[in-house]
Amino acid sequence: MSEVKSKIKRVSALKQRGKVLRDTNPLLAVFQWGCNHMMNEAELVSDQPLILDRDFKAFSKVQVHNQYYNEQELPNKFKVKEYCPVVFKSLRHRFGEDPADYLTSICDGQIYGGKSTGKGGGDIYYTHDHRLVIKTLAKEEVASFHHTFKQYYSYIVECDGDTLLARYLGMYRITVHEKETYMVVMNSIRPVGIPTHRLYDLKGSKVDRKASDKERAKDLPCLKDIDFEEAQERLYLGGDTETFKETLKRDVQFLEKHNLMDYSLLVAIHDCNEQTPGEIDRDVDVYHVGPHAKDLKADPKRLYFIGIIDVLTVYSTRKRAAHAAKTAKHGARAEISTVKPDQYAKRLLEFVSSMLA
Amino acid sequence: MSEVKSKIKRVSALKQRGKVLRDTNPLLAVFQWGCNHMMNEAELVSDQPLILDRDFKAFSKVQVHNQYYNEQELPNKFKVKEYCPVVFKSLRHRFGEDPADYLTSICDGQIYGGKSTGKGGGDIYYTHDHRLVIKTLAKEEVASFHHTFKQYYSYIVECDGDTLLARYLGMYRITVHEKETYMVVMNSIRPVGIPTHRLYDLKGSKVDRKASDKERAKDLPCLKDIDFEEAQERLYLGGDTETFKETLKRDVQFLEKHNLMDYSLLVAIHDCNEQTPGEIDRDVDVYHVGPHAKDLKADPKRLYFIGIIDVLTVYSTRKRAAHAAKTAKHGARAEISTVKPDQYAKRLLEFVSSMLA
Repeated sequence: MSEVKSKIKRVSALKQRGKVLRDTNPLLAVFQWGCNHMMNEAELVSDQPLILDRDFKAFSKVQVHNQYYNEQELPNKFKVKEYCPVVFKSLRHRFGEDPADYLTSICDGQIYGGKSTGKGGGDIYYTHDHRLVIKTLAKEEVASFHHTFKQYYSYIVECDGDTLLARYLGMYRITVHEKETYMVVMNSIRPVGIPTHRLYDLKGSKVDRKASDKERAKDLPCLKDIDFEEAQERLYLGGDTETFKETLKRDVQFLEKHNLMDYSLLVAIHDCNEQTPGEIDRDVDVYHVGPHAKDLKADPKRLYFIGIIDVLTVYSTRKRAAHAAKTAKHGARAEISTVKPDQYAKRLLEFVSSMLA
Repeated sequence: MSEVKSKIKRVSALKQRGKVLRDTNPLLAVFQWGCNHMMNEAELVSDQPLILDRDFKAFSKVQVHNQYYNEQELPNKFKVKEYCPVVFKSLRHRFGEDPADYLTSICDGQIYGGKSTGKGGGDIYYTHDHRLVIKTLAKEEVASFHHTFKQYYSYIVECDGDTLLARYLGMYRITVHEKETYMVVMNSIRPVGIPTHRLYDLKGSKVDRKASDKERAKDLPCLKDIDFEEAQERLYLGGDTETFKETLKRDVQFLEKHNLMDYSLLVAIHDCNEQTPGEIDRDVDVYHVGPHAKDLKADPKRLYFIGIIDVLTVYSTRKRAAHAAKTAKHGARAEISTVKPDQYAKRLLEFVSSMLA
């Protein structure tokens, strides 16, 4: 009997999730399976002290083919690819996203959502607890994401989490029935357990920036710049105003520097007047609403949860083409939303300044 | 936001193993990874009340490709295929093999062993706790296994575990660096915690059935028929003799009926004289030595652990060719080990009868 030399690595491991979504949507079932698989793998990988260049080119792919087995739960054949697993593991750690919580949100319940009504074209999903947002991306958006991901990571490290930028937690490609779907997971800006009474997606543009009647008919419509002005909405940040403006400015400068645009400032407003008294202990809850929310408590009547979303779209050929088309339609000086990154940044900052009380 | 209908299945799940063997042998590292993966998958699959024909054709394949990721632990590319996952899950259940114990044995420590000294050609490995035996099989042996596996399963169900036949717990194909290795996992016949002092592999043949000098030099050599006779060894089964003979006869008849041969009776002997007093409570320990051992306590001086191993080799063209060659060498009437299944069965039964005290 020959001896085999071995080292046994001991790490504290995630508990295997005991649930699999049996969804009418195989994409979501495989997404859940894949996140569980990849997270379990990630737990077994030794932590490395430094993120290297190659970690941004890294991936982990798994391909499953079951015959006459587990057919009720999952498609017979599927693939899951996780991009940059070590970088995302580090990001989750920096954002204080516990691996077990991540899996609980994704795997322990139904995923809601689907076709987006926005012009981006991607679908938007929410985990059962509304803690995480999952967006589908077009292939060129994924390329753009990779183009900027390293800078994004460096920026997050630099500002040590003090940023309004969207918190990216994982990026996957799911292949079911030969169809590839790219999915990115983010923290939701809206806090768990504190109702949102009004929701705005703001870009600083007036062109086409009004929620449709269909959108407005929803329980919580996603309103836009013109709606914000018409409602004479203001953000009352009190003593936090300057900090907020500085953070926002730094974030927007980062985005501008890296040729990024088309992002939005998402503002979720909780109206304390509409709150059942005693439901929220503001001194406690508000400062525990999740790492992503910029919570500001100057306004005695409202709580604001603010973040910059859709930040990793590079100003590309496609954008330039859209810009040319819109300029032709609305005239060169019209306040259209499709402009260059520097103009885009400036316009958003100006608009936000004007909306602060 | 469209609602997605879903059913959430709740099962008690295995705890994810927190260790991966970092072995100089990538085959074993992938084998451990694969067993862990497949067992976790199996836990998520609903139990079915009945094993169906198609379950014997079922498989689960997983293919992994990591780039710049987890390179210290595992090869970049590998595949694991589990055969008949539902049937093996049922067998493990019938043999009282707890899924968590199965994984602890395989994943929580070094796997010992390697190149077999036997003529079968396959390699033999042992789990760190010596509870499980892992054998590699040639491709034609796997085909033969599948040919007989359904009958084997029916027989195990029929005799309700009252058999000396090897307990098959899982069958896998591991692909590392394009090389395919077939591996089957069985319960060890030797009990955990009770030392074996002598070990015999018996076929009832006298031709070439003597341990080599190299084998005899080992701490616990695997002795053969001629060694057994020369040592004037006897099995003292007392009141259990008839039960043992009946079980053995029924098992051997099953093997003969399905054209199986070349199996061995493995006999592990614990010598109580060599035992530190108090180390074994015979009334308790001996009846808890693992589901596989046929423990017999008539002999006050010895404990026997007996099983029939290598049972799923069909009498095939290859065997017939070997038979022709040996007949030419030793003469048609010589007691060679390569005979037909009915002769093989008869010869073994006769030999075992002669060795009972």
